[in-house]
Amino acid sequence: MSESLFLRACRREPVARTPVWMMRQAGRYLPEYQQIRAKADFLTICRTPELAAEVTLQPVRRFGFDAAIIFSDILIPLEALGFPIAFVNDRPTITEPVGSASDVPEAIPDDFEAGLQFVYQAIGLVCNELPSHVPLIGFAGAPFTLGSYLIEGGGSRTYAKTKTFFYECPEAAHRLLGLLADAVAVHLGAQIRAGAQAVQLFDSWAGALAEDEYRVWALPYVRRIMEALGPTGVPRILYTLNGAHLTDSLIETGADVLSIDWRVPMDRACDRLLPHVAIQGNLDPTRLLGGCNRAMQEVTTILDMVNGRPGHIMNLGHGVLPSTPVENVEALVRAVHAHRRALDSSTGSQRSDEESCHVGIV
Amino acid sequence: MSESLFLRACRREPVARTPVWMMRQAGRYLPEYQQIRAKADFLTICRTPELAAEVTLQPVRRFGFDAAIIFSDILIPLEALGFPIAFVNDRPTITEPVGSASDVPEAIPDDFEAGLQFVYQAIGLVCNELPSHVPLIGFAGAPFTLGSYLIEGGGSRTYAKTKTFFYECPEAAHRLLGLLADAVAVHLGAQIRAGAQAVQLFDSWAGALAEDEYRVWALPYVRRIMEALGPTGVPRILYTLNGAHLTDSLIETGADVLSIDWRVPMDRACDRLLPHVAIQGNLDPTRLLGGCNRAMQEVTTILDMVNGRPGHIMNLGHGVLPSTPVENVEALVRAVHAHRRALDSSTGSQRSDEESCHVGIV
Repeated sequence: MSESLFLRACRREPVARTPVWMMRQAGRYLPEYQQIRAKADFLTICRTPELAAEVTLQPVRRFGFDAAIIFSDILIPLEALGFPIAFVNDRPTITEPVGSASDVPEAIPDDFEAGLQFVYQAIGLVCNELPSHVPLIGFAGAPFTLGSYLIEGGGSRTYAKTKTFFYECPEAAHRLLGLLADAVAVHLGAQIRAGAQAVQLFDSWAGALAEDEYRVWALPYVRRIMEALGPTGVPRILYTLNGAHLTDSLIETGADVLSIDWRVPMDRACDRLLPHVAIQGNLDPTRLLGGCNRAMQEVTTILDMVNGRPGHIMNLGHGVLPSTPVENVEALVRAVHAHRRALDSSTGSQRSDEESCHVGIV
Repeated sequence: MSESLFLRACRREPVARTPVWMMRQAGRYLPEYQQIRAKADFLTICRTPELAAEVTLQPVRRFGFDAAIIFSDILIPLEALGFPIAFVNDRPTITEPVGSASDVPEAIPDDFEAGLQFVYQAIGLVCNELPSHVPLIGFAGAPFTLGSYLIEGGGSRTYAKTKTFFYECPEAAHRLLGLLADAVAVHLGAQIRAGAQAVQLFDSWAGALAEDEYRVWALPYVRRIMEALGPTGVPRILYTLNGAHLTDSLIETGADVLSIDWRVPMDRACDRLLPHVAIQGNLDPTRLLGGCNRAMQEVTTILDMVNGRPGHIMNLGHGVLPSTPVENVEALVRAVHAHRRALDSSTGSQRSDEESCHVGIV
C-alpha cells in the first residue's frame, strides 16, 4: 500500500478506496494555521519556506489526507513578473494593474524563477516530511484568471475591465495571456523538479465566459500549459469553478483530471467525463457548514453516485470555507474511509484492496 | 400595431420583430440618469415617485425599447418588512441582518403595502406617459435571493452565513422564505393593480445552489409566488443568473418566461425551453463593451440562433454595465430592428407581420 491512492485515481486506475483532499485544506478553518497567522501575515507565510511547509503539512497530519497541496497563492508568480501584490481590506490586490497595451511585459523576466525560489524550497521541505504514499500537489492560476486579476486589479463580479481590454486591445490581450501561459508552465515545471508529484491549474473565473469566448480567451492558453508540461506521468489537474457549460472544451484542454463544482451531479459528471479524464470534486463547501451527520451524508451521496468507478478523487467544488467546523472535515474524511468498508461488507467478503475495485460494486 | 410585441412574445405568439429591452436599462450608463443621480442618491430616486418615473422613462425615450421596467431595487420591500437598508461603499447593505431564528418576523406587517406606496405611485406616473404598445414591467427579488441578503447583510460570494442558518435553523429558514414569498406576492400584485402589465422575479443568486438544494430552498417559494399571481394574463418572468444547471426545476416554477444568461447558447436554450416557456435573454453584458460592430454582430448571432421561433424577447443575461457606451446600446436596438428587415428581404417578399412569423425562416 505504499503507492499513492491519489496518483492512481488521477490515472483512472482502480483504488482500494477513494482518495480525498480539500482545496484550501491548509487555511483559516484550522486552529493550528490560525496560530501561525497570528504571528505572520498571509504573504509572509507564502514567502517563508519553513512557514509555508509547516502549514502545508498541518492538514495532512490532522486528517490524514491523501495529498498535500503547497501553501501559496495564484497571485504569487505575478510579483515575479513585475506586478506587486498587496492585501487591501483582506482582499488580494494588484497595486499597478494592466491598463493599456504598454503595461503588458515584453517577456518573462530573466529572474522569474529565481524570484520564486521560496516556493520551490517550501516544496522541498514538504517532500522531506510527507509519507511516501502522500504526494504533494504544486499549483498555479490559469492565464484567464491571472489576466483578469492583472487587468481588474483584484477580484471582479463582472470582468468589465477585462473584457473591455480584450476587445479594445486584442493583440495585447493575447500577448498577455500567452506570456502568462509561458510563465505558468515555467513555474509548474519548477515545482515538479522541486518534488511536486502532480500539478493543479486554477481557472477560478473562466466560468464567467460563454463557451465561444472560453475557446478564444482561455482554452488555447490552458492547452499551451498542458502541452508544455507534457504527459510526463505527473498528473495535470484543471480546476474550473462554475464550468459545467464548458465541459466539451475542458476535455479538449489536455488535462488528466478535471476538478469540478457541485452544479453537475456526480453521476452525470462520471458518465460524461470518466471516459476521457479523471474527476476531482464536487462537494459544495457550504454543505460542510451544518452538522457532522449532514457532512457524512453529503459525502456518501457523492460516493454512491460515483459507484466505485475508477478515476474519482473526493474533494470540494471550491475551497473550504473559513467558518467550516474542524469536526465536519473529520466527518468528511471518516465518510470516505467508511464508504470503502460499506462497499466491502455489502459484497459480504474480506477482499484485497485491488480486488475490491475490480468487482462491479452496486 | 398597437399591441405590444413584448406581451405577444411573452405568450409565445408570433411577432413582427423580436421585442427588446435591457435589465438595468434605467441606470448609470445613461448621461440623463447621471444628471438626476448628481442631485439625488439611489434610494432617494427609488422613494420619490416623480424621480423613479422619470428615470424609468429615460431609456424608453432614448432607445425606443419595447418594455419599461419600474426603477426600484429588490431590497426596497425588505425595508417595509422592517429591515433597514443602506448603501455602504456603494454596496447595498442590510443594517440589521437576520442572525437567529428570533430575527425572523412573525408576519408581514399590516403597513407593508402602505410602506411601498411610492413604488405603486411611480408605476401610475409611468403608465400615464408610456405609449400604449410599451408595457411596464413590475419586479421583485425572489425569496432565496432576498433571504440570502437578509442573512448575509449584503452580497456574498460564498453564502456561508445563509447556508449555516439554513442548516442550523431549518424551521426558521423556511418560515423566512415563506414570509418573503408571501410579501413578494403582495408587492407584485399591488404593482399589477397599479398598472404593471408584466412582472419579473429576480433570483439573482439561486445559481449558486445545486439542483437538489434549489428544490428545497428556492423552487417551492418561487412556485408559491407564481401560483399566488395566477395565470391572469400578466406574464410572470423568472430571471436566474447562472441557472443553466437548474433548467428542469426552472420550468417547474410555473413562470411564463425564463430570463437566462449567456452560459447556454440560444439555439440550445430554444430547443429545450420554447416548448414550455418563452425565453428572455441572453447577451453577456460584457459583449457591449467593445465597438458598435461587435455589439451588432453579437445580437445578430443570438437572433440567428432563435431563427424566428416565437417566444423570444431580446435582453441581456445580466444588468447592463455602468461602463457600457450608449452607442453600443443604440447598436443593440438597431441590430434587433435590422434583423427583421434582413429576414424579410431574405425571403424576397413584403409580408404582413403575422405572415413573417409563420413562414419557416432559414
